[in-house]
Amino acid sequence: MALMSSVSAGQLAEQKKELDAQYRAVQAQGLKLDMSRGKPSAEQLDLSMGMMDCLTSKDLLQTAAGEDARNYGLLEGIPEARQLFADLLGLKPSEIFVGGNSSLNLMYDTVARAMQFGTCQGEAPWNRQGKLKFLCPVPGYDRHFAVTETFGIEMINIPMTENGPDMDMVEKLVSSDPSVKGIWCVPKYSNPDGITYSDETVRRFAALKPAARDFRIFWDNAYCIHDLTDTPDTLLNIMDECKKLGSEDMVYIFASTSKISFSGAGVAVMGMSEKNLAWAKKFLSMQTIGFDKINQLRHVRFFGSAEGMKAHMAKHKALIQPRFELVLNMLEKELGGLGIASWTRPNGGYFFSLNVLPGCAKRVVSLCKEAGVTLTGAGASFPYGVDPEDTNIRIAPTYPSMEDLEKAAEILCLCVKLAAVEKLLQEQAA
Amino acid sequence: MALMSSVSAGQLAEQKKELDAQYRAVQAQGLKLDMSRGKPSAEQLDLSMGMMDCLTSKDLLQTAAGEDARNYGLLEGIPEARQLFADLLGLKPSEIFVGGNSSLNLMYDTVARAMQFGTCQGEAPWNRQGKLKFLCPVPGYDRHFAVTETFGIEMINIPMTENGPDMDMVEKLVSSDPSVKGIWCVPKYSNPDGITYSDETVRRFAALKPAARDFRIFWDNAYCIHDLTDTPDTLLNIMDECKKLGSEDMVYIFASTSKISFSGAGVAVMGMSEKNLAWAKKFLSMQTIGFDKINQLRHVRFFGSAEGMKAHMAKHKALIQPRFELVLNMLEKELGGLGIASWTRPNGGYFFSLNVLPGCAKRVVSLCKEAGVTLTGAGASFPYGVDPEDTNIRIAPTYPSMEDLEKAAEILCLCVKLAAVEKLLQEQAA
Repeated sequence: MALMSSVSAGQLAEQKKELDAQYRAVQAQGLKLDMSRGKPSAEQLDLSMGMMDCLTSKDLLQTAAGEDARNYGLLEGIPEARQLFADLLGLKPSEIFVGGNSSLNLMYDTVARAMQFGTCQGEAPWNRQGKLKFLCPVPGYDRHFAVTETFGIEMINIPMTENGPDMDMVEKLVSSDPSVKGIWCVPKYSNPDGITYSDETVRRFAALKPAARDFRIFWDNAYCIHDLTDTPDTLLNIMDECKKLGSEDMVYIFASTSKISFSGAGVAVMGMSEKNLAWAKKFLSMQTIGFDKINQLRHVRFFGSAEGMKAHMAKHKALIQPRFELVLNMLEKELGGLGIASWTRPNGGYFFSLNVLPGCAKRVVSLCKEAGVTLTGAGASFPYGVDPEDTNIRIAPTYPSMEDLEKAAEILCLCVKLAAVEKLLQEQAA
Repeated sequence: MALMSSVSAGQLAEQKKELDAQYRAVQAQGLKLDMSRGKPSAEQLDLSMGMMDCLTSKDLLQTAAGEDARNYGLLEGIPEARQLFADLLGLKPSEIFVGGNSSLNLMYDTVARAMQFGTCQGEAPWNRQGKLKFLCPVPGYDRHFAVTETFGIEMINIPMTENGPDMDMVEKLVSSDPSVKGIWCVPKYSNPDGITYSDETVRRFAALKPAARDFRIFWDNAYCIHDLTDTPDTLLNIMDECKKLGSEDMVYIFASTSKISFSGAGVAVMGMSEKNLAWAKKFLSMQTIGFDKINQLRHVRFFGSAEGMKAHMAKHKALIQPRFELVLNMLEKELGGLGIASWTRPNGGYFFSLNVLPGCAKRVVSLCKEAGVTLTGAGASFPYGVDPEDTNIRIAPTYPSMEDLEKAAEILCLCVKLAAVEKLLQEQAA
């Protein structure tokens, strides 16, 4: 198919007429489809139902060391869960804190703790340091941005490249501005692009020389073992790189089993230097006597080991990969070569980015909505919900059935074309 | 037995000699007993093991309304859990937020939220209001005081009476001082006295006219159904009383199943006016996508109803009551009539207070420790760990076995006597 932008005004008008007719026909079907949310499907959740049977009333709910998982205690998590996640993340068990069911909550608490009490660096609490800033690689995860906005921290967009955030910009801002206190990273299969940071990017992160001694990298390794293809990405271990340079207090690592076991009842984990962890525990020990250790034990028994978790992920892959393929193939078929859209094709994670013509993302989302297909709101992947180019749409193919997904993807392609024709006609008229 | 204080110096010296000999004999046994912690015993935890079987891989993990408990969503908890706790606490389901496993965490978060963001009253965040104060009925719960201390809030001791906190003092401070932002209450079977607030006390709380519009009562109803005797206390519903007076935004209610199901894997809950809850949810929705709904469902299935929870507590009572009886009877037998100690005899809860001669609590705890019996540290039940009279010892009889408890109680009585004789001898010498 030809580049749409090289088509004459008359041909465009003709195309629009045809697309309008198709659109009206779709609208008449009264569909209700949802491609907005990074949620596992029911079939994915079914994969972990065995977890419901691995601790019964016949089992001794004790750790290997004999601690009763049913009672109070063990703030930092049961030793075998700390070991499991240490193996998964390439950390020492003493660097692991196993929390409740939400890594977002651990991240929120970590920001809240720094705001109220500061960090182990001994600087003043962030609340008392005036105007603060966080760097936000964009497009990124809306809930990260929501946390920073809630605490009144100014967010600075950092463009993503195929190797991760623009490190020239990161280095410049971090090293020159002491009000820059943090950066949000989803280093593997980033939300929404699905980009994995290159080895060089990770090394440059570890080598940052922040102007603020209490600057922290929030390394949300949400998709650490969430591969989609047979050529998975690999991510360099940032803690190892930091240790080589003595910068290990600069990074907070987060992960969870929300997209491994159950999204609503998984186990979340923080990884950090022992110095950072001692500081965090000082306040966590005021906050709670401990998190749910029975659920930690349930996860340990079900998965057995980090290898067991990885093996389990192959089952998720089998369910998710066809959904990604379906949507990506549809995009290729319908939009390939038109010059009106581009998209990422990640090796893992839960999303990919669809980039439409500048100024068209909101229009596409709105057209889809009117045709019965809910997408993530345009701009959601940007601080303050503002995509400066209005070009990025986050596509989340995991939750709908294959049948729904096919219909939704068709309509999406139609709406991308329609928005493009509208825009090109406007441009030619101007 | 005679009042020890009416005994002559010579007789006291004689008694001391005898008690010293007994003490040395106990020390020689090299015991290691622990009466320090308000933990359920393993037998109590065994009562809830059926909970491990009520959700299996064969069960549909859905709410009655068809929401998948395994997936993301339902920040405020599953509807049936909200109903269960509403029934338990005499609130509306719309006034209930079901959280993770820790009510302490909900309390900490509630204080943290007010510090950082303020309350629904629209006043400035507590962090920006200068020096703040909380009223602390004493003796009270050490972890409440630890939270306030962590946030740098000044604590003011309020003496407990047999009807609850000294309300004349509470009313005076709350109505006159806008820097008084809160009060910690364990209104039923208070920690550690085991006192239940009288109807009049509850009504006076509801009728408070705070100088600070953002003053809040932290009503930690931790022992709401934790009866020990056949003549249980009843607590007036503070929310009902507040609603009569239009003061329902003044109270935050907390409870959990930590001492009903599993201490490490229960379900915690907040109850508050819809206005307060909407405010809290505004920030909680930034903090997490939701708490563990499978565990909420597990609790709903296991207990069935609030009545089911109450019936379950009768089994706890059967295990705990003999432990309380044993220690209390030992105190009566060994210390009754001596005039050197008094104690509360609560109808429920997890503790009672042993009050020894002024200036002797630390000495008793230290003597016990040297003889192999760990008690809660003297002063722990007071803000900053300081019992002004050094008289109060928190006794926690639930965790040890009956055999251990008997030995521990004997040694406790011996140490109370020894510390008293030491003190009386000193006084006579002075």
